[in-house]
Amino acid sequence: MPAQPSHNASAPAPAPGPDALRADARENRDRILRAAREAYALHGIDVPISAIARRAGVGVATLYRRFPTRAVLIEEAFAEQLAECAGVLDEALEDPDPWRAFCSVFTKVCAMQAADRGFTHAFLARFPDASSYAGERHRAEEGLALLVRRAKEAGALRPDFDVSDVVLALLANNGVVNGVQPEAGAASRRLVGYLLESFRAEGAARPLPPPVRLELDRLHGVG
Amino acid sequence: MPAQPSHNASAPAPAPGPDALRADARENRDRILRAAREAYALHGIDVPISAIARRAGVGVATLYRRFPTRAVLIEEAFAEQLAECAGVLDEALEDPDPWRAFCSVFTKVCAMQAADRGFTHAFLARFPDASSYAGERHRAEEGLALLVRRAKEAGALRPDFDVSDVVLALLANNGVVNGVQPEAGAASRRLVGYLLESFRAEGAARPLPPPVRLELDRLHGVG
Repeated sequence: MPAQPSHNASAPAPAPGPDALRADARENRDRILRAAREAYALHGIDVPISAIARRAGVGVATLYRRFPTRAVLIEEAFAEQLAECAGVLDEALEDPDPWRAFCSVFTKVCAMQAADRGFTHAFLARFPDASSYAGERHRAEEGLALLVRRAKEAGALRPDFDVSDVVLALLANNGVVNGVQPEAGAASRRLVGYLLESFRAEGAARPLPPPVRLELDRLHGVG
Repeated sequence: MPAQPSHNASAPAPAPGPDALRADARENRDRILRAAREAYALHGIDVPISAIARRAGVGVATLYRRFPTRAVLIEEAFAEQLAECAGVLDEALEDPDPWRAFCSVFTKVCAMQAADRGFTHAFLARFPDASSYAGERHRAEEGLALLVRRAKEAGALRPDFDVSDVVLALLANNGVVNGVQPEAGAASRRLVGYLLESFRAEGAARPLPPPVRLELDRLHGVG
């Protein structure tokens, strides 16, 4: 279609109608989010914005117009996984068996971590700009603390288990996931099996070294 | 000792005597090895050679004259730790209590890993050029396999423990060590406490997911 001369430089006629514009914008947006997820999954969230733009086939300026900060891009790229995590936690909190609930959350989160290298960063890293993240993380921390308390009260989880041991275990799982490609899933399942054995109250006679106070955001910067 | 004039162009007069030369070379050598250990401990073995030379205050050419390949530099930088590891293993193999022997090796190697980020690379990475490494690793693998067999035969180690689980555990420990500075030591001790709980035969009723066949050199490339 030949371009028409126009006095309005920012909206040359004939402009696409609002529906076409929206569809175009949405397609760009989806393409960027897909590229971001792929790049984060492969390389972690330190991937340069320019590499994500290149992968998506858009300019860096376009990317920044849709996602004004790095934190917003990360947040939106992982919105689905955040929702999945929240679902895992909600489901566990409904479970009448506290040990099954605890095992379920721990197992599923470790599996998500094994399946996607970007996940650890995305769900647990520190993003001062992304307030919905802070809210989700706070909610995750409260939910985890509740699961831990219930599993201890039921006598299923060892009494010296500390909620920070969840972070310790996720760091350990992350080490396995990063070190063992392509068998990350199988290696992670084996580690999770061992860790759950060690978390069980039964036979928990030997004292452990003291816990290290770790908040979830201590997973920040972990590849 | 005064230098003697000489017709030999490779030793222009007045050249330092052989003792002075040797002392100078040794000092350079020690300085490079110290710089290499520091750099590896801080950043892992992917540190560029030029950064090590800079840290040591020598030229890159000088460094390469003393250490013709990267593998030789790494090997010599960690010779002491290799000897320490060999000592830990030898001592454990003398211990009449197989479970105490197993725990001792596992605990000490994890502590060395926590104390020094370069250690995992240095001791366990794949160095095709460094034959003494291959020898040490082979010896370590045989020693570990023997410790595992003895601890199982004594009924102390769970029968479904696989020798590859040592590598799995070292990868997990590595994840904790890299993720938790400056409390790497305390966090690693806590993880080791849990893992030893899960390795004990007592109460090992629940089946584990199958082991992943991991050789020690799978720690290659782990930061």
